[in-house]
Amino acid sequence: MKRHDIFTIHAAPFYAYRKQVILRQAQKLKQVFPDFEILYSIKTNPFFPILQTISEFGLGADAASAKEVSESRRAGIPSERIYFSAPGKTRDELEDVIGRCHIIADSFHELDLCNRLAQEKHAVLPIGIRINPAFSMEGTEGGPSQFGIDEEQLLSSHAFDDFPALRPTGIHVHIQSQILDADQLTAYYAHVLTLALRLEHLWDTKFSYINFGSGLGIVYDPDTQKPLDLDVLQKKVSTVFDAFRPRLQAKFLLESGRFLVGESGVYVTEIMDIKISRGKTYYIVKNGTNGFFRPVMKELMTKDQHTPAPAEPFYTCPNISQVTLLADREGTETVDIVGGLCSRYDLLASNVTLPRAEVGDRLLFTNAGSYGYTLSPLLFGSQTPPDQLWLEHEIDI
Amino acid sequence: MKRHDIFTIHAAPFYAYRKQVILRQAQKLKQVFPDFEILYSIKTNPFFPILQTISEFGLGADAASAKEVSESRRAGIPSERIYFSAPGKTRDELEDVIGRCHIIADSFHELDLCNRLAQEKHAVLPIGIRINPAFSMEGTEGGPSQFGIDEEQLLSSHAFDDFPALRPTGIHVHIQSQILDADQLTAYYAHVLTLALRLEHLWDTKFSYINFGSGLGIVYDPDTQKPLDLDVLQKKVSTVFDAFRPRLQAKFLLESGRFLVGESGVYVTEIMDIKISRGKTYYIVKNGTNGFFRPVMKELMTKDQHTPAPAEPFYTCPNISQVTLLADREGTETVDIVGGLCSRYDLLASNVTLPRAEVGDRLLFTNAGSYGYTLSPLLFGSQTPPDQLWLEHEIDI
Repeated sequence: MKRHDIFTIHAAPFYAYRKQVILRQAQKLKQVFPDFEILYSIKTNPFFPILQTISEFGLGADAASAKEVSESRRAGIPSERIYFSAPGKTRDELEDVIGRCHIIADSFHELDLCNRLAQEKHAVLPIGIRINPAFSMEGTEGGPSQFGIDEEQLLSSHAFDDFPALRPTGIHVHIQSQILDADQLTAYYAHVLTLALRLEHLWDTKFSYINFGSGLGIVYDPDTQKPLDLDVLQKKVSTVFDAFRPRLQAKFLLESGRFLVGESGVYVTEIMDIKISRGKTYYIVKNGTNGFFRPVMKELMTKDQHTPAPAEPFYTCPNISQVTLLADREGTETVDIVGGLCSRYDLLASNVTLPRAEVGDRLLFTNAGSYGYTLSPLLFGSQTPPDQLWLEHEIDI
Repeated sequence: MKRHDIFTIHAAPFYAYRKQVILRQAQKLKQVFPDFEILYSIKTNPFFPILQTISEFGLGADAASAKEVSESRRAGIPSERIYFSAPGKTRDELEDVIGRCHIIADSFHELDLCNRLAQEKHAVLPIGIRINPAFSMEGTEGGPSQFGIDEEQLLSSHAFDDFPALRPTGIHVHIQSQILDADQLTAYYAHVLTLALRLEHLWDTKFSYINFGSGLGIVYDPDTQKPLDLDVLQKKVSTVFDAFRPRLQAKFLLESGRFLVGESGVYVTEIMDIKISRGKTYYIVKNGTNGFFRPVMKELMTKDQHTPAPAEPFYTCPNISQVTLLADREGTETVDIVGGLCSRYDLLASNVTLPRAEVGDRLLFTNAGSYGYTLSPLLFGSQTPPDQLWLEHEIDI
């Protein structure tokens, strides 16, 4: 089926996610990290067929809420492949997930909550710890963070003396996402491995897992970004991990969210009106802000000629999503694409050059597979929110 | 009931809207604009008890989608007090609302759609027109806009010759919101009135309504903003309208959204964890981004020491919401307030000084009555979204 056909049948607006792209990306990860357990970061896109695909392919889940734990289980991901890591976990949530996933504590307060729960059950609870490391992705000293426990607080204390019902079974480090540089990632993995060895020695234990967060970046802007070189990464990574492997029994976990699904998704909407006002042309489409917010956010963040540093997952870079017209039209024009809300900042793209569209034509936005649907304020304006479609078969866009 | 009591009973997080504040604000508007029909801009907050209050108080509705039209009717607002104005209206939406509200066309394309619908029904359809005026709120020339039809396009054409089944019955102008200056507003009203007279003359008609959009601003930041002086506004407004009144038969409409509800609402959330990392203290609360996004947006927009121009309704000014601790605690500390998502930009407030809180304490954010709940990406992270509470009686915050 041609692209135009499949994307013009269903009532717009909608997201469409391509299963084959997700499988291809998963395959790539498996090749670079053959001995790893790959975890899908559900927060990037919790759409259920995606979770089922993740499950079928044998990947695990990085869950950031109790609901994400239960959704993972519902999709058939076994408990031993689900890792629950997030700040601010409540006692209720912890009680709810015990025995249903690995719990990664984010603070001393959470360790205390888990210890009490374990004592009440007269059990010893295996627990992971998220660590705020003393290093940054740039190789400088680590700063303060709302996530995890500072490395030095763990190294200077006998943390588990206070928590007799807990047994440390793993660590989790995640400091920055969207990294496209193989050297940076490799150095980061080596740092985490070194830290794991120190903590194993300190706590006189052998971890059963080491969770390498931070994922792998994807290219949003082909003009300014180069894709992560997976061949280079594979070689460097295998050198590092081979060096540490003999000293560690732990399973290595790799989190990846947008690498798996980001490019799989597109957002398709329909042009409802075309307006020329004082020399400027506007395409007015269904559901901008309340459909696919990330491009609107990019316009907001970069207004006033400002070029901000990335603020993941809200803003990555100026050229965050490419837009194409899903119709064969002659001539071109430069337009602003706006949604139908009564705000002039309901702006999906400014000054883009496209074939000269007609009302009823559709526009396709790329890179809508991660942080799209769930990161949009879908209720705003009381308009019908976009559907989400699942495309099993190969479709070019 | 004491504030602490009422705000600590219900499970957090939640929004709470105070009916008495809304009624007080409505009363103020009635005093300044005694002969006007006041329209509530539903998009600011479509919570149903608010619509019922609006209905009981005899106000009308500014609806921005077909759903907002039907919700207005469900709340008991009569059709003749509902005005549907938005860009990108579809044929289906228009067909759905005909006879159920005043329709304000946003473009020549919409005029054409309405004309065809009227012809199919062998009827003459009264229609309003949203106009993009040739003046700005600052008194300079008007620029291009995605909203309405350019004033000069209307003045240079016999617009209605092509639409024999339409009868022009009103105009709508809305160019900028959040205005706190009485002089600016008065000059704007005078401009709109002059434009109305010119169009009545051109089309040889008498309008039945003139809809003054743009609302009235509210103070978000008491340090840098002064409230709109309603006494001054009333005097100036009555002078202007008295001068035009004899030449016009039209009803005057005034849109106001956030002026009615903005200050009525608060957002209450709970501290789940307190963490000190490398000298910095974090309060980790339930539902930041996925609860009340506007403060998070403010932090995003102003990061990198950037001070952007307003971008309503997403960003108004740096000090957008005041936060207080709902507990009596001794000492103070300076903290970052963050949500529980795995993003360091899930940041509700940075470097605020508060009484030294304990886990389980609650925080109250002000100015959450407009563009709060529906402007937040509630699904992100699959956490339970906040409730919305309706407070009938007087409550201090």
